[in-house]
Parts: sequence; structure tokens; C-alpha cells
Amino acid sequence: MSKRKVSIEDIARRAGVSHSTVSRALRDNPLISPKVREEIKQLAREMSYVPNAIAQSLLSSRTNTIGVVVTSIADPFFAEVVEGIEQVATSSGLSVVLSTSHRDLKQEIAAIDNFHRRRVDGILVADSRISKQHTKQLTQIAVPTILINSQAEDQSEIFHSVAIDDRLGARLAVEHLVSLGHTSIGYLGVGDRSRSNQQRLEGYRIALAEAGLPQIDDWVAINDQDKTRTSDVSTGRKMLSKLLTAGVTGIFCYNDMVAVGALLACQELGISVPRDLSLVGFDGIALSRYVTPPLTTICQPMLEMGSFAMQMLLDLVQDKTVENRVLSPFLVQRGSSAVFRNNHK
Amino acid sequence: MSKRKVSIEDIARRAGVSHSTVSRALRDNPLISPKVREEIKQLAREMSYVPNAIAQSLLSSRTNTIGVVVTSIADPFFAEVVEGIEQVATSSGLSVVLSTSHRDLKQEIAAIDNFHRRRVDGILVADSRISKQHTKQLTQIAVPTILINSQAEDQSEIFHSVAIDDRLGARLAVEHLVSLGHTSIGYLGVGDRSRSNQQRLEGYRIALAEAGLPQIDDWVAINDQDKTRTSDVSTGRKMLSKLLTAGVTGIFCYNDMVAVGALLACQELGISVPRDLSLVGFDGIALSRYVTPPLTTICQPMLEMGSFAMQMLLDLVQDKTVENRVLSPFLVQRGSSAVFRNNHK
Repeated sequence: MSKRKVSIEDIARRAGVSHSTVSRALRDNPLISPKVREEIKQLAREMSYVPNAIAQSLLSSRTNTIGVVVTSIADPFFAEVVEGIEQVATSSGLSVVLSTSHRDLKQEIAAIDNFHRRRVDGILVADSRISKQHTKQLTQIAVPTILINSQAEDQSEIFHSVAIDDRLGARLAVEHLVSLGHTSIGYLGVGDRSRSNQQRLEGYRIALAEAGLPQIDDWVAINDQDKTRTSDVSTGRKMLSKLLTAGVTGIFCYNDMVAVGALLACQELGISVPRDLSLVGFDGIALSRYVTPPLTTICQPMLEMGSFAMQMLLDLVQDKTVENRVLSPFLVQRGSSAVFRNNHK
Repeated sequence: MSKRKVSIEDIARRAGVSHSTVSRALRDNPLISPKVREEIKQLAREMSYVPNAIAQSLLSSRTNTIGVVVTSIADPFFAEVVEGIEQVATSSGLSVVLSTSHRDLKQEIAAIDNFHRRRVDGILVADSRISKQHTKQLTQIAVPTILINSQAEDQSEIFHSVAIDDRLGARLAVEHLVSLGHTSIGYLGVGDRSRSNQQRLEGYRIALAEAGLPQIDDWVAINDQDKTRTSDVSTGRKMLSKLLTAGVTGIFCYNDMVAVGALLACQELGISVPRDLSLVGFDGIALSRYVTPPLTTICQPMLEMGSFAMQMLLDLVQDKTVENRVLSPFLVQRGSSAVFRNNHK
């Protein structure tokens, strides 16, 4: 008895699903639910389907691996974001491999290219520097790619993204200091993260304007780290005196590491925080709870950022429509900020 | 005029080097010095060598990528070790990809297997749990592999390693507290890193014995983290009261994170460090300098560990003989330890 060989198309028709769903289910692709996979495999057995090994090896080009580009693994902020990524990836049966960019465009492009060569199924990039003009330098943008808190302005046409609302965060920080009675409020920023620094500076200015407070140039200190390559802690430590000389009583710091540096400088100078000076950080990394006093800070939902980005990537891999997300930060008040008391002079 | 085609063997003979050196040099393998590569390429041009593209693609199975398994990217200790690894790798033209084990044997084996499938040239594993009995679970041990601060005892027959001298570190910590006049010295340990915890506990006991001090069971508190999955900071915070009740005046903590937890508990209980209690950590992570008071700690040369391990891996890839390394930690005295004053009761 001669019988036409059963094809994936035949199974798909019988199951009422697409060709690619059957193909994925038979390859045990985690993108298909275990229940559907089992049903389709059962149907394939009933129909005496025999897979074509060569076709199957061509089809199963998925590696079930996601590549993540982080700035450095010594960065406690992205460490928590990656925890969120791993939680979703692991529960979807995907492996995560990491590579570092050290906030350098060339290293970032090399890392992305390397992931392409290794045929990852999707890529997540933290703190990306790639803008439209650089995409030619990428040999290909072959796989779904999502940026997390990126630093270039014109990426939205090329990539999807998950980002924090930096302006809102800065406003929350300054409004908090205003609510405590401070009227001389400084900003201590970084020079090597242009977009987020710019947006936090804008948020700072908007909040001062809304509160009817003056904006003094000397109340803004930004360390040009691109040239000096100093750490954020060193930046905070080094730039504090400039703002103190300018007479501020409260400082919104670019992030928690900068605030820790400012706090260490205060300890060295015998300035009591929060009695003499209030400090507000940004990020909400674990370290912000361990210093004395613990930092008042603007928390980013780090775990959620990672899991949102990973979920978005899973959707892209499955050809679903996705929308960019902007997440809202929130204020956590701890010991480093207090009501302004005019005890200087 | 018919002429036999020039082979790699011919170039090797003329240059007085091995076949593989020529083959590597022509493929621009960073394992060969730039000078030698240029000389061999020049010689190949002079001899009118025409590479066989297919043979070349088979030969160049190297991916110039090193896989590193870390516990978690939220681990500040291995973050610094990885910086050391990256420094050497980058200057050798190699990319580094990272994967996480979360101190779980299964995840560690999956990460190593994944690196094998992706054909990395070498693997570094931090805090490894693999012992001899598990090697069958690895589908292959095909590429040079080096363990950094591993947690199993019988790995030396299978893998090369770079490790810290845990016993020495513990002795330095206890000798420091003894030199400050403390006679009731506790150990606050972790339950999920059996080997290093055991060795630090042994070093603690040896130092007490050498100082002629008593060893009291209640002076040792080890949190069984394997079951509770608590963080090191939580362990320090939770276990401190047990040791205080037992009457210790100085505590050697398993690591800096545990010491930070103990310090936070002291702040909550109104116990002044170092006036009422001296604390000594282990590792020397950046955070140890940021808390108040900054921690006295036993520093591991983290950057050097990473660069040694990476250099050793380069040597293995080049079939050189390598020897396992045990590195010495050193004491850094800061504000969390002080001379014992009998001011209790």
C-alpha cells in the first residue's frame, strides 16, 4: 500500500493551527505552551508523521538563547535589571548570555555583532549608544532587539525600547526637597550618559521653575567623565565642594553612586547629612540602604524593567505587535533628606 | 610552467615554526603575536600562497570567545574578578560572554554545556559546584576550563584552578582581633558555600588555638542558606543577635556582605561599632569602604584573580603547561575594628 508521506502542513490543517506552530511544537520550542506542544506531538504520532531530519535542522535555527549587552557587570543597577530578564527567560526555557559594552559605542557594536554571529534569538541592550547613523556599522540587524534606558535620541525608528521617565524622576526629587523647605537646590550630574543626564537636568529645571525658585548656573555641577573616566562615586566626591561653595542646602544627584560619593565627601568635611545638607539619589540600588544615613532616592522598578523588556522580546520573536514602554520612577524617603533649618551662619 | 601549490606545511618549514602557528597567523589569531603574524603573512605572500577557503573555514574553528560562568551579575565580588578577566581578554583580542549559575549545580552544568555548544575557545567558572561525580553530566569537557574559587573538593584531577587561601585569610582576621585584645571572638558564616565556609571556619579555629583562646560552640553561627535562600546581608542581620547573646566582642564574618548585615543590625540595636563590637569582613568589595564605619576586611586580589585565570586559560589554549595558583589575601584595617575595652557591664 503506497501512501503519501504526512507533512507538517497536513498536521497544521488537521490541528487548525499555523505551519510554524506545528513546526515549533515538534521542535519543543518554549514559545509554544507545553499543552499545545503535547497535543500536536500526539497528533503527529497518530498521523505517523516522520520528520525530515535535514529540513528539521534547517528549520530549527533557533538557539533558545537571548543575548544581553550590559555596561559592566560591576554596575549594580543593570545587575538587578538582568535578574528581571533572567526570571522571564528561565521560565520560558531560554538561556541568557551577557556581554559588556563599558559605555563605549565600539564595544557595544562588537558585542551586538558577536551575538548575531552566535545566532541568538533576540538581543537586549542596556544604556545603548547606537543612533541611526551607526546602524550601518552593524553588519546586520537580523534579530529582534530591544533597548533598555538608551542614551541616543533617534533610536525609536530602528529599535523598540523600555525606559524610565527620567524627567519625572528628577521632578519628584526636586519637589521632595522643595516640600522640605529647601530653596537652594543643586544638581550633581554625569557627563558620560548624555541623554539621561540631560533629561534629569531638564526635570530639575522644570521643578525649580514650577516652584518659583531661582536657577543659578553654579548650582549645577556636571563631571565630564568621558574625558576623565572616573567612577560615579569619585564624581560625587569630587564635585560636592563646588556645590557647597555655591551655597546649596539640598542636592539632587544623578544616581545613588554619585550620592554615595557626595556622602563620603561630607563625612570627610565634617558636614552632617541630613542636618547640614540633604541628598537625594536615583536608582534605588541595594547599596542606597546600606550607607549611613540610608539614601532618600528615586527608585526605578529595576526587576520590572528587565522582565518587561524580556516579555516584549518574546512577543517580538513571535511576531506580535509591541509598544515601547516608559516606566514611572517613585520616591523612597530615607535618612539623607530632612526639613531645611537655617543653621548655616 | 606547472608548479606544485604552496602549502601551509611549506611555509612552516621555511619559517621554522609549527604548522599550527602558520595556520593561526594566517587566520589572524590573537594567540600569535602581531609581529610573528605579520612575518608569516609576508612570507606567505612571497611564496605566493593561496589559501584553500574550505580548508580554512574548517581550520578556523576558533571563535575567539571565552565563556565565563558567574554566580550572578549582582555579585560585587565576581564583578571585579570579571573586570580582571576582561582586561586580559580584550588585550588578546578575545570576546568574553557571561552566563549565570545562581550557585546551583544544574544551572552551572547547563551554562557550561551551552558554552560548549557555542564553541567557545575556553571556559572560566566561578564558585563551581561540579565535583568528579558530576562530570558525566557534562556532555563534554572539550575546551580548556579553569575554576575560580571553587566549592568542591575533588576537582583538581579534572580542572585547573585559581583560588584564594581561605584558611590564611581567616587566620589574618582572627589574629587581627586577638592583637586588639579581643578574647571572645565569633565566626558568622554561610551555609551555601560549603568549601570556602569550611576553610574559613578552620582558619578561625586554628588562629584561636594558636592564641590559646577558648573555642565555644555558641561563638559560631552559620546560616543554612541552602534552605532559606536568604541574601548574605540578611544572614548577617539575622545571625548577629545569637553571637551577641553568646558574649563575643569581635566577629569575623564570612564576607563583607555578611558584615554589612551585622553592621545594620548593630545600628538597629543601638550597638556602636567598633566601640561595643569589632567586625571584620572578607573580600574587600567597594561597598566595604562605603558603609559607616568602613569595614576592616580581608582583601582578595580580585582583579589579579581574574587576570591570572584568564592568562592561565590563554596558556592552556596554546597547549602550554600551567600550574594551579593559590593567591594570598591581606588585611586592610579600617574603622569597624578597635582595641577591646571592657565596657560591657
